[in-house]
Amino acid sequence: MEDNDPRRPLLGTRRENRYRRVASKLCSLDSWRRRLPITIWLPNYCVEYLIRDIIAGVTVGLTSIPQGIAYAIVAGVPPQVGLYSSIFPGIVYALFGSCKDVTVGPTAILSALLAKHVARSVDFAYLAAFLSGCCVLLLGVLQLGFLLDFISKPVISGFTTAAALQIAASQLKTLFRISGKSGDTFVSALVNFFTNIATVQLWDTVLGIASIIALIILKKSVIAVADSDSSCRRNTLKTWKYLVQARNAIVVLIAAIIAFVLHLYGRMPFALTGKIEGGLPRFGLPPFSTTVNNETVGFEGMLQEFGPEGLVMPLVAILESIAIAKAFAGSTTVDATQEMIAIGMCNLLASFAQSMPATGSFTRTAINHASGVMTPAGSLVKASIVLLSVTLLTEAFYFIPRATLAGVIVVAMASLIDVQIVRRLWRNSKLQLLVFVVTVVTGASVGLEYGILAGAAVDVLRTLAAAARPHITTQSFKVGNQDCICLTPVGSLSYACAEYIPMMLQRRARGRATTIVLDAKHLNSMDIGVAENLISSILDLEEKNLRFLLWNLPEHIARLLEDIQPGFDTRIVSGPSIDQHILGLDVVRRDPIY
Amino acid sequence: MEDNDPRRPLLGTRRENRYRRVASKLCSLDSWRRRLPITIWLPNYCVEYLIRDIIAGVTVGLTSIPQGIAYAIVAGVPPQVGLYSSIFPGIVYALFGSCKDVTVGPTAILSALLAKHVARSVDFAYLAAFLSGCCVLLLGVLQLGFLLDFISKPVISGFTTAAALQIAASQLKTLFRISGKSGDTFVSALVNFFTNIATVQLWDTVLGIASIIALIILKKSVIAVADSDSSCRRNTLKTWKYLVQARNAIVVLIAAIIAFVLHLYGRMPFALTGKIEGGLPRFGLPPFSTTVNNETVGFEGMLQEFGPEGLVMPLVAILESIAIAKAFAGSTTVDATQEMIAIGMCNLLASFAQSMPATGSFTRTAINHASGVMTPAGSLVKASIVLLSVTLLTEAFYFIPRATLAGVIVVAMASLIDVQIVRRLWRNSKLQLLVFVVTVVTGASVGLEYGILAGAAVDVLRTLAAAARPHITTQSFKVGNQDCICLTPVGSLSYACAEYIPMMLQRRARGRATTIVLDAKHLNSMDIGVAENLISSILDLEEKNLRFLLWNLPEHIARLLEDIQPGFDTRIVSGPSIDQHILGLDVVRRDPIY
Repeated sequence: MEDNDPRRPLLGTRRENRYRRVASKLCSLDSWRRRLPITIWLPNYCVEYLIRDIIAGVTVGLTSIPQGIAYAIVAGVPPQVGLYSSIFPGIVYALFGSCKDVTVGPTAILSALLAKHVARSVDFAYLAAFLSGCCVLLLGVLQLGFLLDFISKPVISGFTTAAALQIAASQLKTLFRISGKSGDTFVSALVNFFTNIATVQLWDTVLGIASIIALIILKKSVIAVADSDSSCRRNTLKTWKYLVQARNAIVVLIAAIIAFVLHLYGRMPFALTGKIEGGLPRFGLPPFSTTVNNETVGFEGMLQEFGPEGLVMPLVAILESIAIAKAFAGSTTVDATQEMIAIGMCNLLASFAQSMPATGSFTRTAINHASGVMTPAGSLVKASIVLLSVTLLTEAFYFIPRATLAGVIVVAMASLIDVQIVRRLWRNSKLQLLVFVVTVVTGASVGLEYGILAGAAVDVLRTLAAAARPHITTQSFKVGNQDCICLTPVGSLSYACAEYIPMMLQRRARGRATTIVLDAKHLNSMDIGVAENLISSILDLEEKNLRFLLWNLPEHIARLLEDIQPGFDTRIVSGPSIDQHILGLDVVRRDPIY
Repeated sequence: MEDNDPRRPLLGTRRENRYRRVASKLCSLDSWRRRLPITIWLPNYCVEYLIRDIIAGVTVGLTSIPQGIAYAIVAGVPPQVGLYSSIFPGIVYALFGSCKDVTVGPTAILSALLAKHVARSVDFAYLAAFLSGCCVLLLGVLQLGFLLDFISKPVISGFTTAAALQIAASQLKTLFRISGKSGDTFVSALVNFFTNIATVQLWDTVLGIASIIALIILKKSVIAVADSDSSCRRNTLKTWKYLVQARNAIVVLIAAIIAFVLHLYGRMPFALTGKIEGGLPRFGLPPFSTTVNNETVGFEGMLQEFGPEGLVMPLVAILESIAIAKAFAGSTTVDATQEMIAIGMCNLLASFAQSMPATGSFTRTAINHASGVMTPAGSLVKASIVLLSVTLLTEAFYFIPRATLAGVIVVAMASLIDVQIVRRLWRNSKLQLLVFVVTVVTGASVGLEYGILAGAAVDVLRTLAAAARPHITTQSFKVGNQDCICLTPVGSLSYACAEYIPMMLQRRARGRATTIVLDAKHLNSMDIGVAENLISSILDLEEKNLRFLLWNLPEHIARLLEDIQPGFDTRIVSGPSIDQHILGLDVVRRDPIY
């Protein structure tokens, strides 16, 4: 390896240089400014930026309100908490965030992960935000982002798909207003749905389905209008696009108006959001103890409730926000460390203001990007819009039908399900498809956290299996009247192939060849167990009158072999051609040493 | 990979062939005879074999008696159980064993692993033998031996070293006859020793140290005699060698005689083995329930007591016996499957006759080999000798001083501590040394089972870290007036390097080069995440007027790239020389597709 990547784990080469580099980094002003990106973009701020940020901020704000309430319901926290989680993390992100497009707020997946803890006490939501913030911040400060590299694309896609399935299934209860619990997993949510299907309510169902259809039509309409392609409609198209981006707000508004009108006529066929406690949140320390079933649970008890699988929450927060940042960064590189610091700070600070865990949200970031946001100040505008709504509009929120919110969530989830990767993996790698399937099935039946763990475990097994069967090409050829074969291992011979190597040698040695050449020019490393087994099989086979040549062996491997079996280096040769060594074998080589 | 190894995991190529091969194997008589090796060697048995087997069997039997008693004491079971575990597994091994040298019986490490369970009830010893037998047999029948490949040489050495340290430390209590408990780990045994050091007993200490010195002198004497090298002493040397091989029995015998004589004079300064219940064991089903502290514990409770770390016992049984079989097999290959079946049957059947877990023992196998054993029938002779002793000599066993037995164990343990590997790894691979150290430290402080797990975990991390930083060589060259660099990745680009590849590309692209060639002839596979990131960085860099050529890409990878980004294949070239492609770049290539 010839890179000097600072994140390179475990190996200690060039360590001194690295320390020097880190020290000089810590002392430079620039590197500190990079940690507070507002100091970079604010000095260049201008009126044009302001106008575009306001347009984008308002559009995103209009989506943040219904989504905030909806995801609060998914998590099981009071609706205003979902709104608070759009406001305060948004403000913090404007200070620390390095990507102008990223919009921070509650997300469906984080809410789903939180739901089972909140079922015991709402205080778990605030503590989760605090702890997730600490974890993410720590990973950022310690530059441990490389740990995320070990979660593969099929695992991430599988996890997202399982989460989307679970969240959509958990909304069936609200969509059809049936009784019973919604269930912790996709499977249990479906079971509950079909068990209680007899209690379905007509008007909620009609409204829910109508909302879904309306949202889908609005989404597709942009494409339809664009296709019609008459040049006079350019402006109509542009206006329409903005309207469509606020489609969630529009559909929710219309449904609320319908509910309000029916209410005026003294009828109420829908389940409504109900009274929302408006105003500002209670500021203060996040709760380090809580009450569950009239019993006080201390900090330790709360930590135990989260368990080790609670670490999946910060993990998902990072994965979501970095994936989103990369998707919208275009050709500029994403500073993953800074993103982790920003998301960590967002959660940490917002947990002092009754927020639940928040991270980059795909839908809202896409809208932000499409609305032409210029700086993270857009995030401040969005926060103000949501803040206004939570202080002034809570009366109006009363009339939002729950079935419509469920429809908003179901439509949002449909876009998260990754069908393309299944097709692609089916065609190209069944083994990676297995990883995806294991993640989805475990996530949907046992729990999302276990899905990510099971998928990662299969990936580890896959890596080990690959290490156990290294790639070795075989070539037969003739030099003079000698039959030879040349074996070329590629990459590393790690401990996992220690038993395979002698087996492979013995199988290859069964042919007519009298000389076996081991061409090691593409070999990087050899573990001690492999080296010992290799030596003993070579000695065994030499007793059966086979001859061995080790060609182009890297020096550190040659040293290891000589260390294990002094005198072994008589078999080691180098040079561009092997022929002369094979022909001169009897002249050059001393007798083998047993 | 071009092997068709039946043990090759996960990948499903040539599956049909494999099924056919397995089916034909199941139907042939030969493959069934291989599963009962006595049917192979017994028909050719002759008088010469018998004589040599008797000599070897008697010599090994003389060592098995003191070691059996000693290891029974290590495990905390009654002394006769240690002897039974030499007898019945020995008989079964004669039927199923494929290696003439291997001697099956209780071993120090298995006894140490068993001790903490036996502390609750002796019934755990018999159940452990039964369960370990089932596990090992199952692994053998299902041909899952490849799972052991994932335990590396440093882990095995570290585990053995930690076990030797722990067992030796646990004997300090007996050697110095101090009071207090002996402790579950090396660290706790040492702590107990130093806490109670004031209670040391003079005469036991003297006898124990004297036994150790005598054993060491006897062991070294062979070398000394051999060195003197006068040809007339040849015969003396041979006789002496046999005597020395029975040194454990000799030292124990002398110590017992001393104790007996002192007893005749009415003095007893030593702790003795005491009364042994002789005769045959009680035959019957292994105990599926037991009594702990006057409470009945059912089968499930006993399983819970073993816990998942109980699986380390069968694992160690296999590792020990296969390692030993290989060490003494010389140039013949060891049939690992058959060895697992044999060890499994030994434990399974012997658990019906009050045996504790047994496996191949290094010291006794070495003696067996040195005594010139010819067939597994030597094992039957050894079993008869031990059987005779347990029925006729139990009165004599009464006088064996415990301090001498402790001395026997301590000396046996000294040879298990692997110092050489530390020196070798220090010189050649600090990372593998870390694996060794983690295994030893965890094993010696937390528990042996956890040592093996911790070491294996570090190995897995090591494999993942290697997969995250693949080997990529860089070459700069000039074609015409164009600066080019050629990057050659070797082996696999797995999911763990998905973030590293774009970073590496961007770093390499910073130089003067205008054309970057990716030479993929040594690339075997590319995960989907790597492929996606590779494509997006190539597209990004092409926007900055760099040009890319992918040379000699394996077809399945080319297909994957084209699947992700249709039109990407315009960059893919092949052929022996890259120069013409670089020069003809503008002619051959269409515009890049964004």
